[in-house]
Order: sequence, then structure tokens, then C-alpha cells
Amino acid sequence: MGEAEYGSGGMTMTMMKKNKDRRIVVAIDESEESMYALSWCLTNLLSQEAKTNNISINNTIVLLYVKPPPPAYSSMDPTGYLFAGDVVETMEKYSRGLANSVMNRAEEVYRGFNTTTIKVEKKIGSGDAKNVICVAVEKLAADVLVMGSHDYGFFKRALLGSVSDYCSKHVKCPLVVVKRPKNA
Amino acid sequence: MGEAEYGSGGMTMTMMKKNKDRRIVVAIDESEESMYALSWCLTNLLSQEAKTNNISINNTIVLLYVKPPPPAYSSMDPTGYLFAGDVVETMEKYSRGLANSVMNRAEEVYRGFNTTTIKVEKKIGSGDAKNVICVAVEKLAADVLVMGSHDYGFFKRALLGSVSDYCSKHVKCPLVVVKRPKNA
Repeated sequence: MGEAEYGSGGMTMTMMKKNKDRRIVVAIDESEESMYALSWCLTNLLSQEAKTNNISINNTIVLLYVKPPPPAYSSMDPTGYLFAGDVVETMEKYSRGLANSVMNRAEEVYRGFNTTTIKVEKKIGSGDAKNVICVAVEKLAADVLVMGSHDYGFFKRALLGSVSDYCSKHVKCPLVVVKRPKNA
Repeated sequence: MGEAEYGSGGMTMTMMKKNKDRRIVVAIDESEESMYALSWCLTNLLSQEAKTNNISINNTIVLLYVKPPPPAYSSMDPTGYLFAGDVVETMEKYSRGLANSVMNRAEEVYRGFNTTTIKVEKKIGSGDAKNVICVAVEKLAADVLVMGSHDYGFFKRALLGSVSDYCSKHVKCPLVVVKRPKNA
């Protein structure tokens, strides 16, 4: 398991994709929906003995978490006071803590499955989630992108835009949008 | 393999879903993209020995083809002449022929895979594709919906709307949008 941090600007690492390898990027965040998506992925896309035409597949799951961009000082702090010194540090610490907490929750989810044959990597990005996800999918040469779907209402969707809509237009690999059933 | 015909108005059959069964609806049309999506589904979602936590899964693939709605007489035939009698019949015959041809192509695709353990059903709907697909997914109690993605440009998408965008908002089950790589 490796951890790497990168922003939307680009990733320094280059990864070679082998034919028999499959790299599944699962975009995760604080939501129940994304944990359900990870669990769906483990159940449906990965199976211990998965063989297709007698070719065994080496699966790698890349857990991708995107931290929100750092706060914009101008809009949030007209007095130049609030974000001075230790407050900035506290917020960054909180953001790191959140990233760790999401990764830990994801770990709990995949530990519930028999994943001895699956490689898990963790990546943390920073910036606008939809852009960072699309850039990461490209750079990681992902074979599938899996993400949860927040069932926003019309107005919230109109305001926030849908990350999955954006990704479905911009990523080149197959995209799985997993909705969490009401009773799960 | 059963064939059934139904429109967007509703389906008469009722199907009980068992816990260990998985019903995968693959929306197919004349496009290469949808055949690629079917092939992706067979490679990635279905594997002969797929076992999750020692529960074997009975997979059913439902091939869903939606015929375009019958032509609107008023808009296409201001003279009341063109669509009289045998022309209508010819067009309906053509539409049926198209449906058969799509189903036959799909059959060729899944025959290339070892699908002895997979049940295949064929359904033909009629009407506006995106509505019919969403209604069918609900009625069939699908566990996954798989569809190809046409890489329309901005204007065509703005005019036609995206079937996959609509489905991602309206179906309750996970949706897989498969893009065909440029070199496939």
C-alpha cells in the first residue's frame, strides 16, 4: 500500500500498465454513498477467483480521496484576521485528519472482504474533486472508475453540479456510478 | 432465452428477485459502443467462477433494445400520403429487422465468451430510449445497468440529451457507462 499526495496540477509518478492488470480507481469521500460504492466494487467487480478466458487478472484498487481546495482568503476573511497563523494550521490539520479518517473507513470496508489477492493503493489529491478525479484517472491509466452517487435534489445539483456527470463526460474509461439503496 | 415486447407504458410480467441472483441489464442499440459495453460487461462483471464470500452468483444478462417510437405522422407527412398503407408496413418491418439485427450482433458478442453459466434474456421495448430503459430497469429489478456511451460533441449532446446522464439520475441501481477506447 502506498500513499502519495498530489494536486490537480499533475502527478509526478508514471505507471506502466500491463495487459493482465486491472486498475480500479474508487473515488471516496466522507459520504456513506462512497463507502457503499467501494463495497459494491469489491462484491461485483472483484472476485477472488475471477478468470476470464483463463487469464487471471491482477487487480489493483486505488482509493482516491480529494481534499477540498484551501480556503480562499479574500472571500472568507475580509478582515485579514481569522485565518492568520494557527487557524490556518488548525484547518490544515483538520483537513489531513479528515483524509485519514476517510481512508481508515475505507480500510474497514475492504477488510470485510477477502482481498488477499488485491493490491490496494491510497492516493490523496487536493483541489476541485471532479477535475482531480479526471486527471488522476488519466494519469493512473485506470481501467474503471467507481464512484458513489449523492442523490441530490434538483436545486442542490444545479448549484453544485454533479461530479459523476462531469466525470462521465471527461474520463475515457468505463465509469460505474453506484447509488446506495434506501435500505442499505 | 425469452423474448418479450413492451413499451414505456409498463410491463405485464412480474419477476421475483432472489438474493443470490444478479440481474444485469445491458442496453444495446445499433452502435459499436453498445456492443463494446456488452463485451466489457462479460469480461469485467461476469466471470465464470465468480464467488464472493463463497456465495456463488447466478447471473442473468438482460439484453434490452429500444425501438424508436413510431413516426409522428403530422410532422413527417404533411400531405397525408407518404405513410399510407404499405409504407407504414415497410417501416415497421424495417424496425423489426433492425431489432433482430441488433440482437443477433449481441448474440455474436456473447458467444465469444464462455457463458454457459449465464442466463441471457432478450427484451425489446419501444419509445423514447431513456424512459423505456429506466422503466425496464425498475420493473426487472435490475442489479446493474450497463450502457455504452456515444462520444457526442457538445452540440449534438445539447440537442439530443444524453441517455446515460438521464439514466444516472433516474435509475436506482448502479450504472456502468462504458466508453469505447479509440483503438478498440
